[in-house]
Amino acid sequence: MSVRIGLLGCGIVGGATARILEVHAAELQQRAGTAIELRKVAVRSLSKPRPVDLPADMWTTDPWEVVKDPEIDVVVEVIGGIEPAKDLILEAFSNGKHVVTANKELLANLGKEVMDAAEASGKDLLFEASVGGGIPIIRPMKESLAGDRVRRVMGIVNGTTNFILTRMSDTGMTFAEALAEADSLGYTEMDPSADIEGFDAASKLAILSSLAFNARVIAGDVAREGISRVTPADISAAHELGYEVKLLAVAEMDDGAVSARVHPAMLPKTHPLASVRDVYNAVFVEGEQTGELMFFGRGAGGGPTGSAVVGDIVEIARNIRNGARGIGCTCYHSAARIRPMDEAKVRYYVVLSVTDQPGVLASVAGVFASNEVSIASVRQEGAGDEATLMLITHTATEGAHRATFVQLGELSTVRSIMSSMRVEGAPE
Amino acid sequence: MSVRIGLLGCGIVGGATARILEVHAAELQQRAGTAIELRKVAVRSLSKPRPVDLPADMWTTDPWEVVKDPEIDVVVEVIGGIEPAKDLILEAFSNGKHVVTANKELLANLGKEVMDAAEASGKDLLFEASVGGGIPIIRPMKESLAGDRVRRVMGIVNGTTNFILTRMSDTGMTFAEALAEADSLGYTEMDPSADIEGFDAASKLAILSSLAFNARVIAGDVAREGISRVTPADISAAHELGYEVKLLAVAEMDDGAVSARVHPAMLPKTHPLASVRDVYNAVFVEGEQTGELMFFGRGAGGGPTGSAVVGDIVEIARNIRNGARGIGCTCYHSAARIRPMDEAKVRYYVVLSVTDQPGVLASVAGVFASNEVSIASVRQEGAGDEATLMLITHTATEGAHRATFVQLGELSTVRSIMSSMRVEGAPE
Repeated sequence: MSVRIGLLGCGIVGGATARILEVHAAELQQRAGTAIELRKVAVRSLSKPRPVDLPADMWTTDPWEVVKDPEIDVVVEVIGGIEPAKDLILEAFSNGKHVVTANKELLANLGKEVMDAAEASGKDLLFEASVGGGIPIIRPMKESLAGDRVRRVMGIVNGTTNFILTRMSDTGMTFAEALAEADSLGYTEMDPSADIEGFDAASKLAILSSLAFNARVIAGDVAREGISRVTPADISAAHELGYEVKLLAVAEMDDGAVSARVHPAMLPKTHPLASVRDVYNAVFVEGEQTGELMFFGRGAGGGPTGSAVVGDIVEIARNIRNGARGIGCTCYHSAARIRPMDEAKVRYYVVLSVTDQPGVLASVAGVFASNEVSIASVRQEGAGDEATLMLITHTATEGAHRATFVQLGELSTVRSIMSSMRVEGAPE
Repeated sequence: MSVRIGLLGCGIVGGATARILEVHAAELQQRAGTAIELRKVAVRSLSKPRPVDLPADMWTTDPWEVVKDPEIDVVVEVIGGIEPAKDLILEAFSNGKHVVTANKELLANLGKEVMDAAEASGKDLLFEASVGGGIPIIRPMKESLAGDRVRRVMGIVNGTTNFILTRMSDTGMTFAEALAEADSLGYTEMDPSADIEGFDAASKLAILSSLAFNARVIAGDVAREGISRVTPADISAAHELGYEVKLLAVAEMDDGAVSARVHPAMLPKTHPLASVRDVYNAVFVEGEQTGELMFFGRGAGGGPTGSAVVGDIVEIARNIRNGARGIGCTCYHSAARIRPMDEAKVRYYVVLSVTDQPGVLASVAGVFASNEVSIASVRQEGAGDEATLMLITHTATEGAHRATFVQLGELSTVRSIMSSMRVEGAPE
C-alpha cells in the first residue's frame, strides 16, 4: 500500500515538491516505510510549462476533484491565499484526508478554524514550510522545546527586506535604490508591500508565537511597521554605534500575556541575528532552561520550501503506516491576553536636533524622567544650528516612549526628533 | 493514568531533568496530554546533596531496581559512559520500557546494539540531549530533513575547546593559558583530554553523521586531531587572512561513502560558524534542496540538556497516550562505506620556511603539482633566513596533501614546514 498525494498548485513550491517526490522516491520510501506516490496535481492552466513531466491524466484544473478523490490520502496545499485554499482544506478534512500546507496567511488569520477541522477529523495538519522556508522551525518549536518555557522569539523572517537592508548597510544606498535592485533580481512580489510593510513577517510571527507560547495569536494581533522609512542616515548612525538595522519580528510572553511586533530595529553587531545577511532568514529563541537558540537558513525558494513540504509528507506517511496521529494543535492557552503595543517593553535610540544653549540637556532629561524612561547613554554633537543629542534609553513601555516623544516635540529647546528606532538584543 | 519516569543518575543533567519535571509539571501534562510523574531516582550516594527535594522512598542506590520496576514506563539514563549504562538500557528494553538517554559515548560506540534492542522490544529510544545539549538537532535531522538529502554536516560541537579557541583568538594567549582559564571557570572535565583531543566531538559527529546520511558511523570511524598544537602564531596568521580557527567536526557523503573527521581548521570570518563563540555550539548542515542551515545554542549545562531530555520524555508520553511509536532507527544505509582519512577532500594552509634563492618557488610548486594538489594562492615574505612561503591549496585528498608535505620536507630549498592547517568553508 502506498500513501497517495494530491497536490494543489504547481508553481515554484509545488513544482519543487513534485520534483523531489519523483527524484527521491526510493529514499523517501525507505524513510517513510511506505511508498509515497503523487496521484493528482491541480493547476489553473494546463498549457503553462511545469518543472515536472507527469502523465497527462494526473493533471486537472479542478482542485475540488483532488480534495474529494477517494484515492488520495494526503492533500498538499501550495496555492496560498485565504480562498479557495481554506475551503479546499476544510473539504479535504471532511473527506478524511491529511493536509500539508505552506500557507502562512491562512494559518495566521484563520488558523483556529483549520486546526479545529483537523482535530474534528482526527487527521494531521502539518505546516513546516509556512515559516522560514527550508529552516526546520515549526517541528523544533512544537516538539523539541516541549520540555522548556519559551520567553522570547526574535526573527528575521522575510528575505526580501533583509536583502534590502543588507544592501543599504553594505553600500549606503537608499531604500528605493535597494528595492530596485531586489526587484531586478526577482526577489520582490508583484505588489511588494506585503514584504516591505511587514505583513508577511507579521503572519509568520503570529504562527511562531502561537507555537512558542501555546497561545492563539493571529496576524491582526501583531503590531507592525515596515522598512520604507529607514534612511541611509539611520543605518550609518547604527554602524557608528556598532549596530546593524534589521526588520525584526519579536514576540514575548510575560505575566500570561503575549506581545508581538514587527519593526525595524537596531541590533548589536555581536548578536547572532546581526550576521544574517541577504535573503537568509533566522529565528532566535530564548528558553527559560535552554537559553539562547538560533535556527538559520534559506527562508524561501522552491528547493528549501519544497523540501520542508516533503518532510511533512514523510511524517504523515509514517503516521499512516503506524496508525498513529501527529501532535495536533498545541494552542491550549487560548485565553492568553494579547498585549497592546503601548504595553510592549522596548528601548529606543533617538536623535534630537536641539538649540545650542544652557539647560537643553536638563529639559530633555526631565521629559524622559517624567515618563519614567531612563537614559542608558547620551552624546551631544555639533553646535549652533547643528547641535544634536543622541540618546539610547533603557527598557520602558512603548506608551511611555511615545508620550516622551510627544512632549519632547513640545519643548522649545528641541527643534525636531530627527530619527528614532527601537533597539533590540543589547545588554541593558 | 500517568507516564511514570525512572531516572538513572542525578548529577547536573539528571538534577535539572528532575527539577524541570517538578516545576513545569502542569505545562508538561498539557503538552503530553497525560501527567508525567517521576517515580524513582537511582544515584550512587544517598548522602550527597541534590538540587531537588524528593520523598525519601523515591531514591535508591540500585539502578537495576529502576529498570526492572513494573511501575516505571520510561527509563531516563543520564549516568553516561558505556558500562553499566548499556546493560541497564538493554535490561530496560527487555522489561518493556521506553528509554531516553543523553549518552553520546554509548550511542557513538555501541549504537547498533542499543537501537536493535529498541527495535526488538518495539519501544522508543530518544537521544536529543546526546549532541548539542539544548540545541534541537537530532529531531530536525531525523524528521524535518527527511525530505532532503544531506551532503555535508559541519559543527562546533564541543564547548570547552570553542571557549579555549575563542580566548586564544581574542587575547593572543597560548593554548596552555586558555586551558587554565577554562579550568578555573569550571569548563573542563577532570581529564580534559576527551574534550581537547577531540574524542567528545568525534562521538557527537558519529551520531550526527549516522542521522544525516542514514548510515552507521561509529566513533572509531571518525579521524581525529585535537587543538593542543594550535599556536598563537596559527591564529594570528588566520586573522591576517580573514579567518578564525575552530575545532570543526565535518562529515560528508559522496559516491555512497561517508567521510568524517574532527580537527582544527581555518574558517572565513564571514562563515556563520565563525561567529559561534565561547561555550556555544552550532551545527551547519548543507542539504541538496534546503541549502545551508545552521542550528545554534548552548551545547552543555543542566538547563539546556535537561530541557532536551524532558522534550524527549514528552514525546514518548504522547506516543504512549496515542498507542503509537516514534520513528525508530533510520540507519538503513548500513552498508555505506566509511572513507579512510587519506581519501577525505580537504584544503590546506601551509607555511614553509624556505631558502632565499632563485628557483625556490618553482621547486615547491613542482612538488604540489606532481601530487595533483593545485595552489589557490601564494605569498612570499621576508628574506635570507626569514624567507617564508604561505600557500593555500585547492581541494585535494588528504593523502595527496600528506605526500606533498613529505616531499616538501625532502626539498633542499625548504628548511621546514612551519605550520599547516586545513581550511573549511571558503569559496574555492
